[in-house]
Amino acid sequence: MAASLADTLAALSIKPSAAITHAETTSPATWKEALIGSGSAPASFELIKTLVYKPKTAKSATPVPVIVIAREETETNSAAIGKKLNLKDLRLASEDLLKEFFSLDKDSLSPLSINESTFSKVLTVLDTSIPTSSSVFAIHANSSKETIFVSGQDIASYLKKFETAETTVQEIDLHALATAPGAAVQTSKPPAKEKEDAKIEGAVQIAIGVKKEVDFPAWYTNVLLKADMLDYYSVSGCYILKPWSYSIWEEIQSWFNVEIKELGVQNSYFPMFVSASVLEREKDHIEGFSPEVAWVTKAGNSDLEEPIAIRPTSETAMYPYYAKWIRSHRDLPLKLNQWNSVVRWEFKNPQPFLRTREFLWQEGHTAHLTKAEADTEVRQILELYRQVYEDLLAVPVIPGIKSEKEKFAGGLYTTTIEGFIPTSGRGIQAATSHCLGQNFSRTEMFNIFVEDPNTGEKTHVWQNSWGLSTRAIGVMVMVHGDNQGLVLPPRVASVQVVVVPCGITAKTTDEKREEINGKCEELAKKLKKAGVRAKADLREGYTPGYKFNDWEQKGVPLRLEIGPNDLAKSQTLTVRRDTGAKAPIPLANVESTVSQLLQTIQADMYTKAKKEYDGHVVEVTKWEEFVPALDGKNVVAIPWCDREACEDDVKERSGRA
Amino acid sequence: MAASLADTLAALSIKPSAAITHAETTSPATWKEALIGSGSAPASFELIKTLVYKPKTAKSATPVPVIVIAREETETNSAAIGKKLNLKDLRLASEDLLKEFFSLDKDSLSPLSINESTFSKVLTVLDTSIPTSSSVFAIHANSSKETIFVSGQDIASYLKKFETAETTVQEIDLHALATAPGAAVQTSKPPAKEKEDAKIEGAVQIAIGVKKEVDFPAWYTNVLLKADMLDYYSVSGCYILKPWSYSIWEEIQSWFNVEIKELGVQNSYFPMFVSASVLEREKDHIEGFSPEVAWVTKAGNSDLEEPIAIRPTSETAMYPYYAKWIRSHRDLPLKLNQWNSVVRWEFKNPQPFLRTREFLWQEGHTAHLTKAEADTEVRQILELYRQVYEDLLAVPVIPGIKSEKEKFAGGLYTTTIEGFIPTSGRGIQAATSHCLGQNFSRTEMFNIFVEDPNTGEKTHVWQNSWGLSTRAIGVMVMVHGDNQGLVLPPRVASVQVVVVPCGITAKTTDEKREEINGKCEELAKKLKKAGVRAKADLREGYTPGYKFNDWEQKGVPLRLEIGPNDLAKSQTLTVRRDTGAKAPIPLANVESTVSQLLQTIQADMYTKAKKEYDGHVVEVTKWEEFVPALDGKNVVAIPWCDREACEDDVKERSGRA
Repeated sequence: MAASLADTLAALSIKPSAAITHAETTSPATWKEALIGSGSAPASFELIKTLVYKPKTAKSATPVPVIVIAREETETNSAAIGKKLNLKDLRLASEDLLKEFFSLDKDSLSPLSINESTFSKVLTVLDTSIPTSSSVFAIHANSSKETIFVSGQDIASYLKKFETAETTVQEIDLHALATAPGAAVQTSKPPAKEKEDAKIEGAVQIAIGVKKEVDFPAWYTNVLLKADMLDYYSVSGCYILKPWSYSIWEEIQSWFNVEIKELGVQNSYFPMFVSASVLEREKDHIEGFSPEVAWVTKAGNSDLEEPIAIRPTSETAMYPYYAKWIRSHRDLPLKLNQWNSVVRWEFKNPQPFLRTREFLWQEGHTAHLTKAEADTEVRQILELYRQVYEDLLAVPVIPGIKSEKEKFAGGLYTTTIEGFIPTSGRGIQAATSHCLGQNFSRTEMFNIFVEDPNTGEKTHVWQNSWGLSTRAIGVMVMVHGDNQGLVLPPRVASVQVVVVPCGITAKTTDEKREEINGKCEELAKKLKKAGVRAKADLREGYTPGYKFNDWEQKGVPLRLEIGPNDLAKSQTLTVRRDTGAKAPIPLANVESTVSQLLQTIQADMYTKAKKEYDGHVVEVTKWEEFVPALDGKNVVAIPWCDREACEDDVKERSGRA
Repeated sequence: MAASLADTLAALSIKPSAAITHAETTSPATWKEALIGSGSAPASFELIKTLVYKPKTAKSATPVPVIVIAREETETNSAAIGKKLNLKDLRLASEDLLKEFFSLDKDSLSPLSINESTFSKVLTVLDTSIPTSSSVFAIHANSSKETIFVSGQDIASYLKKFETAETTVQEIDLHALATAPGAAVQTSKPPAKEKEDAKIEGAVQIAIGVKKEVDFPAWYTNVLLKADMLDYYSVSGCYILKPWSYSIWEEIQSWFNVEIKELGVQNSYFPMFVSASVLEREKDHIEGFSPEVAWVTKAGNSDLEEPIAIRPTSETAMYPYYAKWIRSHRDLPLKLNQWNSVVRWEFKNPQPFLRTREFLWQEGHTAHLTKAEADTEVRQILELYRQVYEDLLAVPVIPGIKSEKEKFAGGLYTTTIEGFIPTSGRGIQAATSHCLGQNFSRTEMFNIFVEDPNTGEKTHVWQNSWGLSTRAIGVMVMVHGDNQGLVLPPRVASVQVVVVPCGITAKTTDEKREEINGKCEELAKKLKKAGVRAKADLREGYTPGYKFNDWEQKGVPLRLEIGPNDLAKSQTLTVRRDTGAKAPIPLANVESTVSQLLQTIQADMYTKAKKEYDGHVVEVTKWEEFVPALDGKNVVAIPWCDREACEDDVKERSGRA
């Protein structure tokens, strides 16, 4: 359909300053991210957005779409534009209309989508600030995977060469239009400003916009954005955790805190800064982390005497104090934990939750008299991590030990739980619990020792460290989400049940409407009182369909609908997010029915995911079957002699195949 | 007593590389801090410690103290030294003995304390690594307020000139001695390594070592260290929050979270990094913070294209997203909070909790449709802060509004609660709740606006921001602590009640001992079950007196003692930390008696502090009375015309007086 980038460029009289082919992009954020990530983008540029509106048109007439070309940052007020152009009720055009006029989806649209034949059939609006700007602008070359960089003047010239006596480019100062007092008066409601994606005509059924099985990375980003989990941030590789995702982290925190306190672990807080000399004390350890360490070198206008690192993890920051605090075997075991953020300035492509430059985690650091005690704790913690994943997030994991090559830098051995993403067929490290042995405590290192009460000998302590990060949230999204959006396991959902009033039409009497709304509110209250995190969605001006879609995207585990019929029968319709199954339940005794149903959903989500994981663990003993099994999106279990040379060999041969 | 620094130097044949007069120091940490803070210390140096031990001596004989001169970092094993010197039972000498021999306290001791007349009466031990080292060493010049820097060779020469045929300096490799296998075998127990301060002979009664009313800063530091609240950290101005203080923060967090969630506030997490351009967007705001901003300029081995700031506060990091997220009045109010750390690289003297370069806090950021709504919330939050201080920490505060000059940089007005430290007679800002007005939301700034549903006009949102930090813990320590150490209000104490077995002597039968210990454990369990944070201290080898002192230093609100007598009478002796009051209570119904008593302690602590604060608020209307009132350690209330010129004038005139 879309011409190749080369063809497109050749057909143009304009010379782009750069042209880039990249991953498909589905939002301004992912587009920008892809361009910066490519390494080939100009140092500074702005995105151009191309919006297509359809005015209200008589059914028999052919619509004349309005194409608005604006800077990404400029607000486009459709009501004000409509008023200016004397058109009624501008709405963002449906995908069908885009296909009909441009043979393109909305993410591939650009000023270049307008050509000799389409120009006369549409109304082209160009923001006046574009031709006069000195910025470099990014526009798609008729595909969401291709971008060229041009000047504003280039864009204007390109469009103007199609002008005829009848049809000209409408140049409008969109910023002034949007911000003029009263500009928004005639905006159709609700909501007052455009929620572009949600309002694409007929878009309700599209939901996430791209299918999980077709474009997994784009699906993932869309789910996170539409579920209001996260937003992109102006510092690349950093993300904003919005309440919808942060509340999941809070659930994990409160569960885990109870469990580790039971084990005698206490929370504390160590500074985020580590001096260079301390950080560099353990050779293997620092080799593992130094390429990713962020350094503070300035404060105010002064240069620091020595650069100071932001912790990538806290072993070397903490252990000089362990040496100081541990003076006798009576001070053992010492078990501290902290909930903090760490910084690893990765240069690989960042991915929300899974690979981010700053992330939230907990790190536990303990010291023991004996290896046996340390060994036991390593496993206890791994078991807690398993429970976080399997019991809270309904995500199955497999416990195991990392190879020497993959273990924690500077440790003795690393235990891990490994998850599985069925869509990509890839395993993923979910959480790790390390035994550090006596490597950090030995005399030449931090020299942490006590007198053994049994032998009277000086003995270096045995240490563990263990961490679980917000990565868990990303894995959960990938495992459970579907083409309607997020699917949340009830135990971590900040809203477990949403109650939506239904069947209210223009003909419904005020009394009836109030009765239905009242019943919904009463039901939510009743459930909350019983400890269920419930909410009634009584927003006015939104259809039940809009609300259904909204809460489905956000992954709320259970929807309860109440309409006039339900009211009459004293029942409510339950709709499960995970299966879509619908069933009426009586309002009598609703608390226990709903609690039970939430437990069932939690269990079913785990069982389903577990079945999928199990179905993709393949035992292989012949080399010929290894790569095909991997290619079949499986986790492959093979015999291994525990030698690094063999590990390298397998990696190399499977990579080559 | 101690000769002046000049005199001491003149009397020496050695030439120090530098000499500094500084605040009195009471520990290696505060000493080092004072030297670095003075700005006059060499770039790198080591502290020298001078320890005085007393060997077991017949009562009639005059003791010959052993003076050990070692590098601060070198472990000194008194048992091994004793063995080496053929002396029995070396113990750290009492203050009395120090006074007798050197006319000095232990913090002022140094190699220079040895002179012609004392040398023959003591046994001087010098670590062999000192004369051969190329380090610069810090030693006191016979006062804990004065330090000179000398070479190791200088120290050795100084001592050796006192040598006679009978008495020579004992040069011992202390490191080898301490780390030799079996070296510690004969150490007296418990604990195996020396806890210097706790083991000073007759030191149990000294507790904090320096009186609150005599040297308030030293007292404060000592209380924090001895209560195990905090430790000094290798990056200056940063401190480690140990579980004993962090648990107080957790209590504050869980209470505050419930309250703000009730107000509709949601928790979230924004990245710690802020790009320079975003940070610098609000002129007044950045002027207020820029001198203290820490900048990351390097990651791994690469220089960043642009320096990135670590947030000093998050207004400018968050508000571009508020502009994006707030699209309609239906999105209002937006109320987010985060629990995080911020960095303000102050160059003034740091002080634990009160002025630190990184600190923990919560920052709330909200946006409202109307000023009235914003005003209401500013006060609601201030009221919550008042409750944190008064109801949780038992610290009285006075609410008020900051002057224009003192308000939050870039805000409209700042409300505050102000605390009072009776010992210093100074007020202290406890927490602030700011109304930012429309300053950050206006068009030229972050342009955060909606269409007003009532008027249809474009209207910029009204914003608030509010913060409470770990400073609260420092204020609490200063207000309640006494010369025995910390005093914790029950509501925030991680251990509210400690149960200590008493009256167990060498003659006590094993059965009786077990019975008493068992009763203590049972009592603690019973209380825990009733929701009281109780703990039985069944450590063996420690006397009840040691335990009393230990828990008093740590501020545990209530001690319960059980001895054979109590057992017989089925009672327990209660000892209040705040008043020292003792009273037996029956074990029957002990849960409610203890809960009631804890409530009484909480209330009494507040009442006492409130009375003290009230007694120091002085109304003054005549200038002649103003400075004297201030000098009387009062908070002075004066009429003020609200003009900045007058504010400046009062500051200037009172500063001059």
